Amino acid sequence: MIKLNETNTKIDDFSSALQVANESLKMLKSRTGKGSEFTGWLDYAANMDKTQLDDMINTAEMIRKDADVFVVAGIGGSYLGAKSFITATSNYFENQKPEILFVGHNMDEDYIAELIDYIKDKSVYVNVISKSGTTTETAVSFRLLREFMMEKYGSDYAKRVVATTDKVKGALKTLADNENIKTFVIPDNIGGRYSVFTPVGLLPIAVSGVDIASVVKVNKDSMAKFLENSETNPALRYAAYRYYCYKSGKKFEVLSCFTPRFRYISEWYKQLFGESEGKDGKGIFPSAMTFTTDLHSLGQYMQDGERQLFETVIDLGRPQRTLEIMKLEDDFDNLNYLAGKRVSDVNNAAMHATVSAHAEGGVPVMVASVDGYSAESLTELYSFFMVSCGISAYSIEVNPFNQPGVEAYKTKMFKLLGKK
Amino acid sequence: MIKLNETNTKIDDFSSALQVANESLKMLKSRTGKGSEFTGWLDYAANMDKTQLDDMINTAEMIRKDADVFVVAGIGGSYLGAKSFITATSNYFENQKPEILFVGHNMDEDYIAELIDYIKDKSVYVNVISKSGTTTETAVSFRLLREFMMEKYGSDYAKRVVATTDKVKGALKTLADNENIKTFVIPDNIGGRYSVFTPVGLLPIAVSGVDIASVVKVNKDSMAKFLENSETNPALRYAAYRYYCYKSGKKFEVLSCFTPRFRYISEWYKQLFGESEGKDGKGIFPSAMTFTTDLHSLGQYMQDGERQLFETVIDLGRPQRTLEIMKLEDDFDNLNYLAGKRVSDVNNAAMHATVSAHAEGGVPVMVASVDGYSAESLTELYSFFMVSCGISAYSIEVNPFNQPGVEAYKTKMFKLLGKK
Repeated sequence: MIKLNETNTKIDDFSSALQVANESLKMLKSRTGKGSEFTGWLDYAANMDKTQLDDMINTAEMIRKDADVFVVAGIGGSYLGAKSFITATSNYFENQKPEILFVGHNMDEDYIAELIDYIKDKSVYVNVISKSGTTTETAVSFRLLREFMMEKYGSDYAKRVVATTDKVKGALKTLADNENIKTFVIPDNIGGRYSVFTPVGLLPIAVSGVDIASVVKVNKDSMAKFLENSETNPALRYAAYRYYCYKSGKKFEVLSCFTPRFRYISEWYKQLFGESEGKDGKGIFPSAMTFTTDLHSLGQYMQDGERQLFETVIDLGRPQRTLEIMKLEDDFDNLNYLAGKRVSDVNNAAMHATVSAHAEGGVPVMVASVDGYSAESLTELYSFFMVSCGISAYSIEVNPFNQPGVEAYKTKMFKLLGKK
Repeated sequence: MIKLNETNTKIDDFSSALQVANESLKMLKSRTGKGSEFTGWLDYAANMDKTQLDDMINTAEMIRKDADVFVVAGIGGSYLGAKSFITATSNYFENQKPEILFVGHNMDEDYIAELIDYIKDKSVYVNVISKSGTTTETAVSFRLLREFMMEKYGSDYAKRVVATTDKVKGALKTLADNENIKTFVIPDNIGGRYSVFTPVGLLPIAVSGVDIASVVKVNKDSMAKFLENSETNPALRYAAYRYYCYKSGKKFEVLSCFTPRFRYISEWYKQLFGESEGKDGKGIFPSAMTFTTDLHSLGQYMQDGERQLFETVIDLGRPQRTLEIMKLEDDFDNLNYLAGKRVSDVNNAAMHATVSAHAEGGVPVMVASVDGYSAESLTELYSFFMVSCGISAYSIEVNPFNQPGVEAYKTKMFKLLGKK
């Protein structure tokens, strides 16, 4: 259960912000706001039938048995949901089997070439994720990867590819139909950044070994909970808090967490909020830090720099492993005062100290506590952010579900490349 | 050679900003500004003798021969310089030998426990980097790691540890003297974030296989070049540009680059500028993006969001590998218009398109071009940033070399942990 600690938010009167947020929540829930045709994620889990879920579970099971490497090709929402969830639940050093690699989210020639070298002699499965099949980064990578697969596996290659794409149309769907490639559907009513709990995210997450039946269940329950018209609803309160901060001249948010496990969830959060809110000359700029690492880098700025920011700390709870700090006879490093404590006790003390220090330095700080980083807790957290984001964007009167600005560079790029 | 393209910087009159920056450069060079006792990095390379350099090269050579894993323990400047340089010059997927791992930059219990599991049966060398030896994160990690090494190697463990620390005093220096641990010196007149080209960064960089004699030479030449009182000096111009932007109400900078190779150089840049400038209620907030990845995430905000930002694009030049986009009979993905082009041609087009699109969207954009990402080019780039940062901080009248704000959370943390 997500809990907010508002002790250091420095809010005098929350009521008018709460009222605005509450109106926004109603719009989101009743599907009467801008872009409401893209709110399918509100009840996608509730409407998912068992056949659909089993199909993903069985496909993932087959891949887990046979693959050394599972390559996921996608960008934006077709990359960050799975990447962040899998990173947060994986070992930092040991490769899991299958190893999950990502491609199609950049156009670094070395990256793609080195990836292909790396997988050359391994058993490879590919999941290509694109609604249209023509997203440049993903399509370029997949064209190269498909050649590699055809060379390695001949016509059998198609059995090793899964396409997550449109239900009926588009380049990727057509290819899949022609070559008998297994497909999963990206729903029409869910945009990329809200798609982590559709097959876009669920299939790779399942391949990583997570029980996605449980993820779907928690996502369903979380949606019901976070859409409640209640002043204690944390998704509502967080959105109201962001609105309040923004209106008081706080132009950027720092999302911080005390474990590198969270680093790609931060990236997912940046897309979710940045792309939903950053339009019409408005929007909070989303940025993120990993503490205590960044206390030794951006900590100085956080404490004493310009005061146009607010901070949201995610407390991910206790780690799974236990390391006790031992007592040493000679105490050469003067750490004996920590003897008997766990490393996480020190980390926790750093977190409490940081919240208090930043607040004293003039930064409003909200703390959101999550009950550990199990797949279930993370699902609740992602659901929390998605609902909050919808409310938050409506509160500043922008459409949370479009991204018109993304076309500007594409148009120019296509022109430079001579696309007709 | 670093070249600036100022076409899209939207500056009408650069002269007064250049004048302020020029005064700052003079202060930096003549060591008459605040914190000038920490400007040893200006001529560290020029003053380095051959014995010192050979000692690092020989130590690195010995480690490269014998180690499977080289664990570097440090935080802040004792982490980011080496981490960023090594990441930028390494293969994305294949582990190099020795594999270089970092610890001591966080207090994630899982991270440390999983690291120790991972290295258990490998040949391990450790480089612990701390001026005092009592920096909490690094000291906690090293206390645990040292126990592991003593268990694995007995009293021989000391031969497998290198301490980069103070010349004469401190907990780590004392331990090293007592146990006959090889040491390298962190100079008194160079702070952490300016220490990448001292043994702090140079030893791990040498272990990664880079020719550090060449790095030292380029660093020396770059310092001479970037300290020139010349209006064409790019370090001066970049600092003047930042000053101009800041004074016109641009409160944060986005450093962007079109390859994930750059991702930790961005982190190093954030510490360098954030910790140097973010004080006395002032300072540009440093943030970073990796394109084209983040064009599908923060691109919307960049194009259409709040306009308090400016952007600096680092053009890292061509990748080393070549992948040509092939022509396909059926053109299933409509990419045949790219046939015969390299992936990097598309990436380059994306870069030019992005610069132009963001500028049209109201973001001032400076482009700094670097001649590829060889160790030499990167050394020039790091040197460029360090000099620019000194100038930039002096221009807004703060001390570029202290970090008083970092103590606030530490004091509170020590109190919570009962440190006497």
